[in-house]
Amino acid sequence: MSSKPKVTIHDIAEKLNITASTVSRALNDHPRISEATKKTVLKAAKSLNYQPNNIAAALRNGKSYIIGIIIPTVDRAFFASVIRGVEEVANKLNYKVIISQSYDNYEKEVQTVDALLSARVDGIIASIGKNTENFDHYKRTQEKGIPLVLFDRTTDELEVSQVMIDDYLGAYKVVEHLIKQGARRIAHFTSPKKVSVFKERLRGYVDALRDYEIPFDEALVIKSNLQLEDGRASMEQLLALSNPPDAVFSASDYGAMGAMQVVKEKGLRVPQDVALAGFGNEPFTSFSEPGLTTVDQFSLTMGRITAELFFEHFKAGTDKKLVPQKTVLKPELVVRGSSLKADALKKDEAIKSN
Amino acid sequence: MSSKPKVTIHDIAEKLNITASTVSRALNDHPRISEATKKTVLKAAKSLNYQPNNIAAALRNGKSYIIGIIIPTVDRAFFASVIRGVEEVANKLNYKVIISQSYDNYEKEVQTVDALLSARVDGIIASIGKNTENFDHYKRTQEKGIPLVLFDRTTDELEVSQVMIDDYLGAYKVVEHLIKQGARRIAHFTSPKKVSVFKERLRGYVDALRDYEIPFDEALVIKSNLQLEDGRASMEQLLALSNPPDAVFSASDYGAMGAMQVVKEKGLRVPQDVALAGFGNEPFTSFSEPGLTTVDQFSLTMGRITAELFFEHFKAGTDKKLVPQKTVLKPELVVRGSSLKADALKKDEAIKSN
Repeated sequence: MSSKPKVTIHDIAEKLNITASTVSRALNDHPRISEATKKTVLKAAKSLNYQPNNIAAALRNGKSYIIGIIIPTVDRAFFASVIRGVEEVANKLNYKVIISQSYDNYEKEVQTVDALLSARVDGIIASIGKNTENFDHYKRTQEKGIPLVLFDRTTDELEVSQVMIDDYLGAYKVVEHLIKQGARRIAHFTSPKKVSVFKERLRGYVDALRDYEIPFDEALVIKSNLQLEDGRASMEQLLALSNPPDAVFSASDYGAMGAMQVVKEKGLRVPQDVALAGFGNEPFTSFSEPGLTTVDQFSLTMGRITAELFFEHFKAGTDKKLVPQKTVLKPELVVRGSSLKADALKKDEAIKSN
Repeated sequence: MSSKPKVTIHDIAEKLNITASTVSRALNDHPRISEATKKTVLKAAKSLNYQPNNIAAALRNGKSYIIGIIIPTVDRAFFASVIRGVEEVANKLNYKVIISQSYDNYEKEVQTVDALLSARVDGIIASIGKNTENFDHYKRTQEKGIPLVLFDRTTDELEVSQVMIDDYLGAYKVVEHLIKQGARRIAHFTSPKKVSVFKERLRGYVDALRDYEIPFDEALVIKSNLQLEDGRASMEQLLALSNPPDAVFSASDYGAMGAMQVVKEKGLRVPQDVALAGFGNEPFTSFSEPGLTTVDQFSLTMGRITAELFFEHFKAGTDKKLVPQKTVLKPELVVRGSSLKADALKKDEAIKSN
């Protein structure tokens, strides 16, 4: 960029024929500098349109009062809401938050870390991308003494504090609920990626089936990117089985919504023929008909707790390093029409007998 | 923060008993410095774990390769998608994007500008908050020679390039469509704020009614924040009228979705009793039943064009200042079940006569 060269203290010094150091001390109200000199310097600074250099100030006290957040994408109500929680806490402490997206792309995630460091953030709060298996870029921030806290998509390969929800418990509760509603062949949409949240949801699904003595059928576990289109394709695949499922638990709300579209297009009923449940409690889950049963992750609370944990480490500093801690939030089952199979069937029965 | 003091070139200089200037020139591969000295300095730098100072480098060449984006909130598919478009263009030019939210709060917006400046962004792309009526914080960035481009929520009070969609045309098309589907009492949900996008949508509504000789009724124009809850309350208010509307055009998809919930809860049918249309084409508009008719704003394209315009100004620099330009995109009407009143009534008729 060919912007005008910035006016510096050297320009003021030259104009007044004094040293830059005197100018600097005058501008910083140093006691050794006379009031007369201070006035002269301030006047010259004003006439030259000198802008006090925040960067230099930040370099001096080592603080930018900015926290950087790295997330896969802002285009998820969950992440947007976590950020809101972080900002609530940060703003009260006069910290601003800047956000950078990795788009679940490893190279972009590395660049994102570099950009935040070059933006001189005082610390980083991150949720790791689906495809990240090397964590050196985060280790580098730690080596620089920049505090790091992870949330939701975390890893044990970094020695940092983490805030997550109990994905296992959330999944277990969903599947248990579907079983109690009479479902016996429950499919599961999961991700092929090694991100712990999806592995934990799969584990919850498997354990709930086992505890209720329902045989596990590998043909009912479909791996995909869990987007709307993936949910559609997975549901098509399941409905083509000789013995299709009577319920689907999708590890994402988007996948469940795609499944709902296909079930309805085929003339089947939700929840009577196929009960559905998602995960995440995206706002749109209450807009569909029937509403989508899902798991709420207390995203706002997660953001607040993450920020509080961050500032705890931040205040302690790197010298008096705090032991990293894991905070696990309990998720909540949100029951809507899409899973109330027993009730819907009973209602159908009542209408028929009238 | 009490992090370890950063190793500087002065520490290296002290260790080697040479001047800081020699260290600096050695690290920058200056031709006047001998290879032997360069090697010694590099070795000392490594042993002290010296991190080359990106900030100093950025101060030297005046570039951080970071663009800051200011938006009201990331929690809107529209903004998320514009950002994606900006990043596509920026990343190709090796620029990173950082995002900061104003939450439609004037004070926060001012702080956000300061935070981005202190993060040393090379330029700013912004969509102005609903409550902002003073633009000094943006003028300040311009005075500093930081290029600024506005999108969607813009203002003519700043001499900057702007990218927007033709909100008037989008609204006009929606209302014309509702009229052609047989609606005669069309309500409108708008915002009380002086943001041009809402004023333009209102103008499109008023003009379409006038062109089709449908009387304008002020009782049918409801002002609110246009969120889901507002849409619910506005619809309740309209249905309580002695002569309720047969269609609603909401300036936001969220408002229309709230209206749909209330219409259905009252046992009325969408679109037969009340046809509905929103604005924005949020992804959830295709999840509801019926799907919501809305206006697509080509958000991804808007992001790309905004970024391209930004880099045009950026490359031209402040010396050879480009004349600010306005780019107006044509929006597209997306017709779904919620507005197909004529078709739905015809179908009902056919069923009845069978």
